[in-house]
Amino acid sequence: MRQSKYFLKTSKTVAKDDTSANARLLEQGGFIKKEMAGVYTFLPLGLRVLAKIENIIREEMDAIGGNEILMPALNSKENWTTTGRWDSMDILFKIKSEHGYEYALGPTHEETITPIALSVIQSYKDLPLAVYQLQTKFRDEARAKSGLLRGREFRMKDLYSFHASNEDLEKYYNEVADSYRTIFKRLGLDALYTYASGGTFSQFSHEFQVELESGEDTIYVNDKTSEAKNKEIFTEEDKASGVYRETMACEVGNIFNLGTKFSEAFGLTYTDQEGASKPVIMASYGIGPSRVMGVLVEKFHDDKGIIWPTAVAPFMVHLLALSGKDEAVAAAADKLYTDLTAAGVEVLYDDRADKMAGEKFADSDLIGIPFRVVISTKTLAEDSVELKPRNIVDASMVKINELINTLNNV
Amino acid sequence: MRQSKYFLKTSKTVAKDDTSANARLLEQGGFIKKEMAGVYTFLPLGLRVLAKIENIIREEMDAIGGNEILMPALNSKENWTTTGRWDSMDILFKIKSEHGYEYALGPTHEETITPIALSVIQSYKDLPLAVYQLQTKFRDEARAKSGLLRGREFRMKDLYSFHASNEDLEKYYNEVADSYRTIFKRLGLDALYTYASGGTFSQFSHEFQVELESGEDTIYVNDKTSEAKNKEIFTEEDKASGVYRETMACEVGNIFNLGTKFSEAFGLTYTDQEGASKPVIMASYGIGPSRVMGVLVEKFHDDKGIIWPTAVAPFMVHLLALSGKDEAVAAAADKLYTDLTAAGVEVLYDDRADKMAGEKFADSDLIGIPFRVVISTKTLAEDSVELKPRNIVDASMVKINELINTLNNV
Repeated sequence: MRQSKYFLKTSKTVAKDDTSANARLLEQGGFIKKEMAGVYTFLPLGLRVLAKIENIIREEMDAIGGNEILMPALNSKENWTTTGRWDSMDILFKIKSEHGYEYALGPTHEETITPIALSVIQSYKDLPLAVYQLQTKFRDEARAKSGLLRGREFRMKDLYSFHASNEDLEKYYNEVADSYRTIFKRLGLDALYTYASGGTFSQFSHEFQVELESGEDTIYVNDKTSEAKNKEIFTEEDKASGVYRETMACEVGNIFNLGTKFSEAFGLTYTDQEGASKPVIMASYGIGPSRVMGVLVEKFHDDKGIIWPTAVAPFMVHLLALSGKDEAVAAAADKLYTDLTAAGVEVLYDDRADKMAGEKFADSDLIGIPFRVVISTKTLAEDSVELKPRNIVDASMVKINELINTLNNV
Repeated sequence: MRQSKYFLKTSKTVAKDDTSANARLLEQGGFIKKEMAGVYTFLPLGLRVLAKIENIIREEMDAIGGNEILMPALNSKENWTTTGRWDSMDILFKIKSEHGYEYALGPTHEETITPIALSVIQSYKDLPLAVYQLQTKFRDEARAKSGLLRGREFRMKDLYSFHASNEDLEKYYNEVADSYRTIFKRLGLDALYTYASGGTFSQFSHEFQVELESGEDTIYVNDKTSEAKNKEIFTEEDKASGVYRETMACEVGNIFNLGTKFSEAFGLTYTDQEGASKPVIMASYGIGPSRVMGVLVEKFHDDKGIIWPTAVAPFMVHLLALSGKDEAVAAAADKLYTDLTAAGVEVLYDDRADKMAGEKFADSDLIGIPFRVVISTKTLAEDSVELKPRNIVDASMVKINELINTLNNV
C-alpha cells in the first residue's frame, strides 16, 4: 500500500479524556477515531489489525467444530422478558420504535441463540452443537473508559455450546479452554487461566486475564501453576497460603457453564436414547477482539509508539523511501515495493515526497509495523537497505537482492 | 463440509407471514432464521453466501481505490441534529440511554463520515478520497416485508467520495457506476442503470434496478439503451415517445451526488492551490448485500428450490452418498470428498446415514448448490458418479478419476 494514497494521517494530538496508552497511540497512529465515549471508528490501519485478530479467532473456532453464524443486534423484548433480563440487566440498551415495537440491542446473545437451537435440536442425535459469531455488541455502560478496553459498542466473538450431559459439556469446555490458550498465544498474549465464581450450575467460571497495570480487575496469580483466582473467589485461606501474588489484569476471554438456565426458560429439550425428554445443557464462551486490540497496545508499546506482534500487525514491512531529489532512490524503492508485494510480503510503502526523514521515522515508530526497511542514497550506493525490527534498537544493512530471503528467515 | 456435522436443517414449514420466494426458500433451506419482522439471523449456509457477495463487492471497491473502514452503529444525536435529519428522517431508530445520552442507530453514515473527513482533509493534496465500509444498518420501517428485500436490520456497503471539483466528482461517479456494473455482473444480476431525481446538486441520481415481479419500484426501461427511468422522473413526454416499457423492479444499488450539503453542515473545507478555502464536494454510493441475496433467490429459483449463481453459491458441489448398507460406496464417497476438498473444490458432503435418497435429492434441490454429484452402488459399479448441474434437467455419468477435471472445465 502506497502511503501517499492511503487513508492514513497520524496526529500529534488526541482527545483530552483519552489518557490510556491504547486510546492515545491508536488515535495518534491513525488506527481508530473516537466518535463518542466508548464508541470508535476503525480506520483502514485499525480495521486491518482487527480483521487479523478476528481471523485467528475464526480459524481456531472452526478447528473445534464451531459453526459460524451472524445474529442480529436487534433483539426482541419478548425473548429478554422470557429470561427476566429485560429488567435485571442494567447495561441493556432499549429501543422503542415509532411503530410500537420494543427491542434490546444485544450485549450477549443467549436470548437469541437458545430459540434458534430450539428450532434445530430435537433428539440426542442433534447434540453436541457449537455455534459462534463475530459480531458487534452494545452495552449501556455508566462509564466507558480506557479506549478499546471498555466500550459501549465493541466487537465480540461469542460461542455457545449445547450438550446432552454434564460430562459432554465438561469435555468441550476444556477443549475450548485449550483453544483459547492457542488463540492468545497466537495473538502474542500471555493470558492466565483464572478461576471466577460460577453461579448455580458449576462451582467456577473461568476468565482469561492478561496482567496489565491499567487493567480493571484484581487477580491473584499462582506463578507455579500459571493460573489465577479473581477477587470474587479469593479467600482469607488463599491469602494465608502465601502462594498468590496480587496484580492488576484485563479480562480478554471468559467461559461459563450456563447449565439449564436458558434451555429451561425457552423450553429447549431433547429426546434421549430411551425416549425421555431432557433439558439441553449449555455453555457460553466469549472473546472481545476489539478489547484484545487495546490490550495488545497496552502491553506492546514504548515511548515512541506501538510494537505490534507479527501475527496481528497491519503490515509486515514499513518501507521508507528517503529519496529527497534522488530519482534513483525513488525508482529503486518503487521496484522494491513491487518485488516485496509480488513475494507476498504485506508492505506499507512510505512514498510521500513531501515528508522529511525525521517525520517518516517518527510515524513508523508510532505505527509500529514489525520491520522497518529504509532505502536512501547512502544505502543504495551499497545496493542495500537498512533493516530494523521495531522492537530492537540496532539496524543492519542487507543487500536488496537478499531482503526477501532475510525477511523469510526472521 | 460433512452435512452430518453441519449446523443445517431444512424445513418444510416457514413463518406464515413470509410469502415472498426469498424468505420462504432461504428459511426452508436453512440459510436464515427469522427473528422478528425485518430481522434475520444468517445461519452457516446463509453466512457463506453473504460473505461471498460482500467479498466480491470489497474486491471491486478496493480496485477503484476505496479505503475500507468500519464505522459504529451508534451515532451521536449531535451529528444528526447538525444536518437536521434527527427530526426529518422518519425511519431513524433513536435510543435514550440510562445515562442521559441520546443516539441514533445509523441507517446511513454521512453524519459520521463527514466529521471523519474533517479530521484528515485540509488541502487539495488530500483530495480525492474514497472511503467505504461493509456494515450493519438499521431502519425503523413502518412495514418490513419481502424477506431480505426490506429489513429493519440489514447489511450495507456504503462508499463516500470527496472531491475538489465537480469535474473530479463526475469522473469518479462514472468510475463507480462502471464498478457497480462489474459487481452486479459478477453477482449474476442484470442491473439496469436507472435515472432518478437528483436533488439540489445534480439533475439526476442513479439507481441500479433489477427487474423483478415482486419488486417495490415501477421503472420504465428503454431496451435499446439498456437504461431506465424511475417513476419520479418519468414524464408524459417519455410515455408518448413509445420508447419505454413499464416493469416492476428492485433497487440493489444507488449513487448520489451530495454536492456540498454535508460538507457545509460540518464545515468540511479544503485549501485550494491558490490558498482559498472551498467546500469539499461529496458523493455517496450504496449496495445492500443482504438485499442482493434476497434478489438472487427471487430471480434464480424453480418450484423445487434455489439455483445459486456459481460466484455466490455456498458450496460448488453437493456430494450425495447413496450408500444404504453398501460400505464400499460410503468409503468411495469419503475418498471423493477428501480428494475434491484437497483440489480446492468447496463441497457440501451429504454423508447422512439415516436419510433416504428421496430426502437427499429434495434437500439438494432446495439448497441449490450448482453441481450435484451422486455416488451409489450403481454408479460405483462403473467407477463413476452422476453429475447434474442444478439448472439443467439431465444428469451425466462421469468417471470418478475425471470428475475434478470435468468440474474445472464447466
